[in-house]
Amino acid sequence: MIVVLRKGSTKADLEGIQRHIQGHGLQAQVSEGVERTVVGVLGETFPELKDELSRLDGVLEVVPISKPYKLCSREFKPEDTIVKIGNVSVGGDELVVMAGPCAVEDELQVISTAEAVKAGGATVLRGGAFKPRSSPYSFRGMGVQGLQLLAKAREETGLPIVTEVMAPEDVGMVSQYADVLQIGTRNAQNFNLLDAVGRIRKPVLLKRGYSCSYEEWLLSAEYILAGGNSQVILCERGIRTFETGTRFTIDLSAIPVIKGLSHLPVVADPSHSTGKANLVTPMTLAAVAAGSHGIIVDVHPNPSMAKCDGAQALTFETFAAMMPQVKAIAQAVGKVPAGITS
Amino acid sequence: MIVVLRKGSTKADLEGIQRHIQGHGLQAQVSEGVERTVVGVLGETFPELKDELSRLDGVLEVVPISKPYKLCSREFKPEDTIVKIGNVSVGGDELVVMAGPCAVEDELQVISTAEAVKAGGATVLRGGAFKPRSSPYSFRGMGVQGLQLLAKAREETGLPIVTEVMAPEDVGMVSQYADVLQIGTRNAQNFNLLDAVGRIRKPVLLKRGYSCSYEEWLLSAEYILAGGNSQVILCERGIRTFETGTRFTIDLSAIPVIKGLSHLPVVADPSHSTGKANLVTPMTLAAVAAGSHGIIVDVHPNPSMAKCDGAQALTFETFAAMMPQVKAIAQAVGKVPAGITS
Amino acid sequence: MIVVLRKGSTKADLEGIQRHIQGHGLQAQVSEGVERTVVGVLGETFPELKDELSRLDGVLEVVPISKPYKLCSREFKPEDTIVKIGNVSVGGDELVVMAGPCAVEDELQVISTAEAVKAGGATVLRGGAFKPRSSPYSFRGMGVQGLQLLAKAREETGLPIVTEVMAPEDVGMVSQYADVLQIGTRNAQNFNLLDAVGRIRKPVLLKRGYSCSYEEWLLSAEYILAGGNSQVILCERGIRTFETGTRFTIDLSAIPVIKGLSHLPVVADPSHSTGKANLVTPMTLAAVAAGSHGIIVDVHPNPSMAKCDGAQALTFETFAAMMPQVKAIAQAVGKVPAGITS
Amino acid sequence: MIVVLRKGSTKADLEGIQRHIQGHGLQAQVSEGVERTVVGVLGETFPELKDELSRLDGVLEVVPISKPYKLCSREFKPEDTIVKIGNVSVGGDELVVMAGPCAVEDELQVISTAEAVKAGGATVLRGGAFKPRSSPYSFRGMGVQGLQLLAKAREETGLPIVTEVMAPEDVGMVSQYADVLQIGTRNAQNFNLLDAVGRIRKPVLLKRGYSCSYEEWLLSAEYILAGGNSQVILCERGIRTFETGTRFTIDLSAIPVIKGLSHLPVVADPSHSTGKANLVTPMTLAAVAAGSHGIIVDVHPNPSMAKCDGAQALTFETFAAMMPQVKAIAQAVGKVPAGITS
Repeated sequence: MIVVLRKGSTKADLEGIQRHIQGHGLQAQVSEGVERTVVGVLGETFPELKDELSRLDGVLEVVPISKPYKLCSREFKPEDTIVKIGNVSVGGDELVVMAGPCAVEDELQVISTAEAVKAGGATVLRGGAFKPRSSPYSFRGMGVQGLQLLAKAREETGLPIVTEVMAPEDVGMVSQYADVLQIGTRNAQNFNLLDAVGRIRKPVLLKRGYSCSYEEWLLSAEYILAGGNSQVILCERGIRTFETGTRFTIDLSAIPVIKGLSHLPVVADPSHSTGKANLVTPMTLAAVAAGSHGIIVDVHPNPSMAKCDGAQALTFETFAAMMPQVKAIAQAVGKVPAGITS
Repeated sequence: MIVVLRKGSTKADLEGIQRHIQGHGLQAQVSEGVERTVVGVLGETFPELKDELSRLDGVLEVVPISKPYKLCSREFKPEDTIVKIGNVSVGGDELVVMAGPCAVEDELQVISTAEAVKAGGATVLRGGAFKPRSSPYSFRGMGVQGLQLLAKAREETGLPIVTEVMAPEDVGMVSQYADVLQIGTRNAQNFNLLDAVGRIRKPVLLKRGYSCSYEEWLLSAEYILAGGNSQVILCERGIRTFETGTRFTIDLSAIPVIKGLSHLPVVADPSHSTGKANLVTPMTLAAVAAGSHGIIVDVHPNPSMAKCDGAQALTFETFAAMMPQVKAIAQAVGKVPAGITS
Repeated sequence: MIVVLRKGSTKADLEGIQRHIQGHGLQAQVSEGVERTVVGVLGETFPELKDELSRLDGVLEVVPISKPYKLCSREFKPEDTIVKIGNVSVGGDELVVMAGPCAVEDELQVISTAEAVKAGGATVLRGGAFKPRSSPYSFRGMGVQGLQLLAKAREETGLPIVTEVMAPEDVGMVSQYADVLQIGTRNAQNFNLLDAVGRIRKPVLLKRGYSCSYEEWLLSAEYILAGGNSQVILCERGIRTFETGTRFTIDLSAIPVIKGLSHLPVVADPSHSTGKANLVTPMTLAAVAAGSHGIIVDVHPNPSMAKCDGAQALTFETFAAMMPQVKAIAQAVGKVPAGITS
Repeated sequence: MIVVLRKGSTKADLEGIQRHIQGHGLQAQVSEGVERTVVGVLGETFPELKDELSRLDGVLEVVPISKPYKLCSREFKPEDTIVKIGNVSVGGDELVVMAGPCAVEDELQVISTAEAVKAGGATVLRGGAFKPRSSPYSFRGMGVQGLQLLAKAREETGLPIVTEVMAPEDVGMVSQYADVLQIGTRNAQNFNLLDAVGRIRKPVLLKRGYSCSYEEWLLSAEYILAGGNSQVILCERGIRTFETGTRFTIDLSAIPVIKGLSHLPVVADPSHSTGKANLVTPMTLAAVAAGSHGIIVDVHPNPSMAKCDGAQALTFETFAAMMPQVKAIAQAVGKVPAGITS
C-alpha cells in the first residue's frame, strides 16, 4: 500500500501519516520524487487501513500495491529511475557500455584494458578484485590490491569503476574504491549482503541470481531499496536451463518484462551468460535492440592467458570491432550511445 | 564421415564410391553442391574405412565428422543453405517476415490478416489449420477447410503459405496446399513425422522442441535431411525453464550457436516463446539484431476474440508500428528487409 | 462439469441428459461405474447450464470440475481405477513389476530375459520393437519382427507384453501383439497418436513427457479417456532439469501428487530416468516407498552389448538381487508384491 | 593429487612431504585416518610432481584425483565419514531424524515441538532463528533470542540442535548455541560464509543450492573441508525445475549419486523440497528407501498459524503417524532407526 500526498502538503502532514502507520506496527518508507511525495506502507496491512489513511491531512490518495515488491514497482514510482555514476546516467536515453577484465590481474593488464575500452566507447570500467569461484582452488582475486589498481586505472582514464563485493563486512572498504558495487549472481539472495548495501549511498549493480524468477530478483532489489538505497541497476546475466551448449541461457525477454514491472534501470551481461567470446557480439546487439539501458562486457588483453573466464573475454580488437555495430543498433532504437565516437 | 570428390570426377567414380559404402552395410547420401560433390556415410563406421575410401577413384579427401548430426553440420557443408519459398529466400541476406493468425478461423479473418501483414512487409503468410493443443477440449483447428482458406488468401495476396502438419498420414494432403510445412514444438521428436516430411520435396520449418538441446534439434533436422529433403528452416520458439513470467524463455543465443554448427537457415518466433503481445516487438528486434534470417509472428484482427493464443497476437496496428523498427535493425546488421517499404 | 445420476435412473433419463447437453453444442461422455453413472460435459459450459441439467429427470447432482482435465480427475471419479492386464491388476494393492529389454534384439535375448525376470518376480514383460531415437543413425528397433518375438516370449512364459507404438497408423497392428500399448516420452504430446489409442480398447501406458507439467501430463491422458479408453496407466520416467549427472531427474513427488489429482494408476521407470544401472535399485526402492503402483525396468542378458541404452540395464543377477528388497519395501508400505516369491 | 603414506611412516616423513609440496607454492592438507594417513595436494599441479613425491621417504603411493573436488571425494577417502552430533552418528547405519519448527516463534512452540518430535523418535532438533526470506517484509526470525529458546529446548529434552547461520560475522555467535550449523540453499555459494564455517570445529549441514549441480555442491563442501573442517553433512532439499506443482523438485537420485562420489553423509529434506505437508510422508519414506542417512523435517504445533512455511509443516499427529512407517522402511534397507521406539 502506498500513500500519495497532495501537492502543497506540509512536513507536519507527512509526520502525521508516518506516525499513524507506525502506530499499527508497520513501517513507513518516504520517497520524495520530482512529481510527488509518496509513503510506502511496509508489512502486513489490513482492509480498514486504506480508509483510515485516506482521511489524514495531506493525503491525495491511497493505492494498494498488488506486487510483493513495493518500492521497486512501477505502481510505486511510474517514472524511470536514473542512476548517476559520475557523469554517466543509467536508465534514460543513454546507452551505457561497461567493460573491462573479469578479474584484475596486474597493473599493466587493468590499465591497458581501461584505455582500450575507453577508446572503443565504454564509459564505465568493470573489474573484479574479489571473485566468487565455484572451486576453492581457483584464483579468488587480488583483493584490496586489486581495488587499488582499479583506482589507479580510474585516475588514468577518468572511467568510474564497478566492482564486486562479497561479504557484508567488506562493504565499507569496497565503497572507498568503487563507484558502483556489484552483487554477483551467487550472492543474489545473500540477504545480509543486500541489507548491507542497502545502508550505503552508492549505486549497486544487482545481478540476477542464475535461478531467480523475475519476482525474486525484484524482491532482492527491494531489500536494497527498503534499506534506503534507491540507486539500483538490475543486470540480466543468464539463467540456468537444461541447455549446456552455452554456459547459461541469456533471458533477453527479462529486459522488457523488468522495464514493465519496475522503474529501475536494467542492463545485460552477454559475457557471463554465454561463456563464449564468439557469442558476445550478437548477444550484445540483441540486448541493445531489446531495450537494455546498457551492457557490461568482459575484455582482456590476452584472453587465453586470463586467470578467470578467459573463454568469454573479448580481445581489444573484437571489442573495437563490435562498438560501431552497438552504435548503429542503439541509434535504431532511439538510444544515445554517448561514448562511442567511432 | 564424408567423402569429398575431386573437381572433374565422373558419374562412374561417384557410383563406385556409393557401391563401396553400401557394401559395408552403410548408407551413402550424395550432396551435389555448387562448390563440390560430397557423399555422407551414414551408420556406424570403422577406422579402416577412411583409408579404403581415400584410395577410390575420384576421391579428394575423406573427412570424419565429429558431430552426431552429419548432413546438417557445417563440417559437411560450409556454405549457407538458402531455402527458396517462391521468390522468397531464407538463409541469405534477406530478412524474411512470416506473419498471420495462429489459427485460421474464417475467410474474413485470414484474408484481412494476409492483406494487413503484406502491407506491413511480410512476405510469407503463416496460419494454422491443424492445431496441437494441450487440452482435447480446446479448438483444434479447421482442418482441410482451413487449408482451403489459406490457399484463397495466397491467391488474393500472392503470399506463400507456411502451415503445420501433425501426422505422417496428413503430409501428402497438407503438401497440396502449403508452400512450407511446419513441424510444431510438441512434434519435434515425432520421428515418424520427421521421416514423412523427409520424403517430400517442399521446405520444412522445424520448430525447436521446447526442451530440446541444440544437438537434439539438429538431430531432428538430420532425420529430414537423411530422408533426402534438404530444404529445412530451423525455428527457435522458446524453451521451458523455471521462469513463469513468460510462457517460455526465448533462447536468442541459439541463433548464433546454430549458425555456427549448421548451414541451415534459422528464424525466431517471438510470439509463441513470450506468450505476451507486449514482448513481441522487443524480442523481434532482438532476434533480428542477433542475426536471425527471419521472424514468424502471430497477427490477428481482434486478439481478444482469437480462438487460439490471442494473448500473444499483435493487432494490425501494432504489427504496422513494429515493421519500420524491424527495417532499421535489419539494415543496421546488414540484412535486406525485402518486403518492408514503410 | 459432471452430471451424477440417481440410483435407479433409467436409460431414457440418460438419453434425455445426453440430448440436452448435445443440444448446446457440447459433448456428453458417459461413465457407468460400479458406484454410480456419471456424464461428463465436455467443452465450454456456461453458468445457467448447471441449473438446467439439475432439473432433468434422473439427475442427482451436477458438479462443476475446476481442473482442465475432467475424466481423469479425482473429482470426476473418486475411487481408484484398476487397469487389468490379464491376471495382473495395476492401481490397487498389488505391486506390479514390469521388466525386460529396452529393445528386442533377437529370440534368445528376449526369451532368456523374459524367463529371468519372471523368475525374479516380474509379472509383465517390457520390450521395444519400435524405438524412438534422437539420431536417425541409431538402431530403431526390429519392427513387426520384434513384436513377433515378444509374442513368442509371452507364449513361453505367460507374461503379458507392454510395447511402444509410435504412429497412429501402427496402432491397429501393434494392438494385435501387445497387451499394453506404450506411448513414449517424446510422443507424450503427439495428439494424433493419443487420439488413436483413445479409440482402441486395450490398456495404454502413458509416459510423462520429459518436460511436461503434471497438468499437461493429465491432459494427455485426458485425450485417451475422452476418446473412450479409460484403461490408462501413467508412468513417471524422469524430467529434464539442469542436472547432467543423471540422464533425467526422476520426480518421485509426482507419485503422490498424481495419486491426489487423478484416479489413474501411476508407475515409475527408474531405468530411463537415471540412465545408470547403479542408480536403478535405489530409485526402484524409493519409488515403491513413495507409493508407486509398480515399476518398469530395463533388464538385459549382457548390457555392454545392448543395441540401445545398455548403460541403464540391469543384468539378470542385479535384477535378481534387487527383487527381495523390492518385496521388503512393498510389504512395509502395505503393498502385495504378487510375483516375488524369493 | 593425494599422497598416501606407508604404515609406519614417521612424523619427520610427513613434515618432509609437506615441505616439498609447499616449496612448489601448493597447499598440503593432512588427513590422518584410521586406515591410513593421506596428504592432499591443493592447487594447480604439474606432471613431474607425482614422481618427485613418490621418491620421498614414507610415501606408499601418489594418486591423481580426477575430480575438481578433492578432499570430499571417495578417491581421497574411500571409507564413509561419520559425523558425530553428541551421541548421534550421521553417516553410518543409524537412520537420523532431525525435526522441529521451520522458525522458532516462542518458548511454548519450540519446547512443545521438541518434546513431540523426541517422543516420535527424532534425535536432533531443527529450528531457525535467522531466516533467509525472499521478501524483506517477511518474518526474518527471532535472532539471538531464538537461539536461546533452542538452547532451552535442548536442556529440557537433551536433543542437540541444528540451526542456520547466514553471515560470516555470525558464525562465532551461532556456534555458541548450535550443535550443527546449517548453511541454507540460498547461501550454498556464499563462499565467504563457507570459508567461515570451514574455520570452526563443529558439524555443518550444507544444503544443496537449489540450482547447484552435484559437482558445484561438492565444491561448496570442499571449501569447508579445505578450511580444515571435515564434519560436513550434505542435505538434498529440492532443485528448481519447470514443474510448479511442487515448490521444488526433490532429486532423490542425488542420494546414491553423492554416496558414490563422496564419503560425506547425505540426508534429505522432504519439507522444503515439496512445500506441501501431504507430500512429506511419501517423500520421507522414499528418501529412506533410497539410502539417505537421515531426514530433516518441519513440524509445528499449529501449521496454519506458522510464521514461516506453514504449508509444509507436519502436525504432531502426522509426524507421530509417519514415524512407524519410517522405522519399517529403515529396517527394510538395513538401517537402524535408533530413536524410533513406536
